[in-house]
Amino acid sequence: MEEQITDIAIIGAGPAGLSAAVNGAARGKTVRLLSGESNYLTKAERVDNYLGFYQVTGEQMMKQFLHHANQMGIVLEKGKVANVLALGDRFLLNFNGEILSAKTVVLASGVSKAKEIPGEREYLGQGVSYCATCDGMLYRGKEAVVWGMSQESAQEANFLQEIGVNVHHISTPQRTEGLHPQVKFMQGSVQQITKEGDRFAVLVKDRKIITDVLFILRDSISPNSLIEGLETQDGYIAVNRWMETNIPGFYAAGDCTGKPLQISKAVGEGLIAAQQAAKYIDEKM
Amino acid sequence: MEEQITDIAIIGAGPAGLSAAVNGAARGKTVRLLSGESNYLTKAERVDNYLGFYQVTGEQMMKQFLHHANQMGIVLEKGKVANVLALGDRFLLNFNGEILSAKTVVLASGVSKAKEIPGEREYLGQGVSYCATCDGMLYRGKEAVVWGMSQESAQEANFLQEIGVNVHHISTPQRTEGLHPQVKFMQGSVQQITKEGDRFAVLVKDRKIITDVLFILRDSISPNSLIEGLETQDGYIAVNRWMETNIPGFYAAGDCTGKPLQISKAVGEGLIAAQQAAKYIDEKM
Repeated sequence: MEEQITDIAIIGAGPAGLSAAVNGAARGKTVRLLSGESNYLTKAERVDNYLGFYQVTGEQMMKQFLHHANQMGIVLEKGKVANVLALGDRFLLNFNGEILSAKTVVLASGVSKAKEIPGEREYLGQGVSYCATCDGMLYRGKEAVVWGMSQESAQEANFLQEIGVNVHHISTPQRTEGLHPQVKFMQGSVQQITKEGDRFAVLVKDRKIITDVLFILRDSISPNSLIEGLETQDGYIAVNRWMETNIPGFYAAGDCTGKPLQISKAVGEGLIAAQQAAKYIDEKM
Repeated sequence: MEEQITDIAIIGAGPAGLSAAVNGAARGKTVRLLSGESNYLTKAERVDNYLGFYQVTGEQMMKQFLHHANQMGIVLEKGKVANVLALGDRFLLNFNGEILSAKTVVLASGVSKAKEIPGEREYLGQGVSYCATCDGMLYRGKEAVVWGMSQESAQEANFLQEIGVNVHHISTPQRTEGLHPQVKFMQGSVQQITKEGDRFAVLVKDRKIITDVLFILRDSISPNSLIEGLETQDGYIAVNRWMETNIPGFYAAGDCTGKPLQISKAVGEGLIAAQQAAKYIDEKM
């Protein structure tokens, strides 16, 4: 069976991701547009400064953007990219626990409000995970803390419990509705994770929970946890004017590359990233 | 009488210039939008890759862009900026022979198809001029060669003849209709200008014309002839990611900063340039 390899995998479907998708498709490349639920733009009351649109709401604008992409045959696939592996000649993306192959990646994940906690980066992949669906099976019969900052965290806690993991669910809002009766719920947020013998200690308020794994479920993952070795600058992904990051074939566009956090900039950068990705494929592959 | 000083003078009213105007106005800055007639976009048959617009003609798109700017109170002023002088605390722009003051400048003049001829830069201001209206009076009773690559060149040749300049009009197309009877017309293009004693020799085909001045009338002026000392790279204006050129307060956006020559990029850069200009004014002035 031949492996399906996408030309350009795009992470995020805000203005930058959609512009990248439209321009990748316009260049005759196959694209996959992967995105979570939320986009800040849809919450904007009124947008005046994206040329061609005047006094529209963010929601109207996003609708028009999505319509444009749909007309070009682009389908938005909802879900979360937990991590990306650079293999040199292609990338592997962990999307909802499924593995996708892509020749290039455009990261257009917006600004992450997520702050990393102490220990998070250090223990990622060996005690910290971003994806219950992906890694849950490894912890059957063991203890897991699910720290839920996204809407769907209760479902993921339930999923883990159902496959036989003993789950603590931590979240700042009281998310107990529909929660599996065996899941232990605690209101709050995780302050840090430390190693404790073969296991881990998770600090929530003044309480220490000993666990085998901490699942951190944010809406978005901080870019430098997404892929190994990605360079950042002042908290944003470092890019040059061609939207190239320090990883060949891996581009970034939109708010995740820094200020100004504006639609026009994001759309322009999405175009550049996709066109560079297309060029990279044509020249190197 | 108090001098009228504009916050942001924008040269060019394609996608980059219009985006700069809209965003300058959105930041509460006064803008003047100065532009010649032609814009390549209006000639595009179909544009598919500016997010939010699908299968529209370039003309429809430009109409929508202009409409947006008009709704924000921005008026397009038609004419030519012949040169810009950086005074440190402000810029002086020669616009149709009138002098405008501006705190900052955004150059969004697109790609110039103009190739400089040998001697052009060297003798600019002392034998070469881009503006008949501006410099014509200096050459009353003298000889002038008007090299017309723009539609209006015959009118400018007539103007010079009427104020008492002896005019040779050179152009590749046969532009004799409506030409002043005393203007000498010659079909062709100017290859070079050299010094010849106190005067200049202009080479057209195999013929050498001795003159006091050569007026070069292009639709657009090459950026580094527009302002002294502007740095370029590979024929485009050198900018950083903030659309800053090497001249403080002088920004560039759109096709004139290099590839990709695309609407989305131009619109994004126009936004960045205007926002940086606004910031510059707020911080430094």
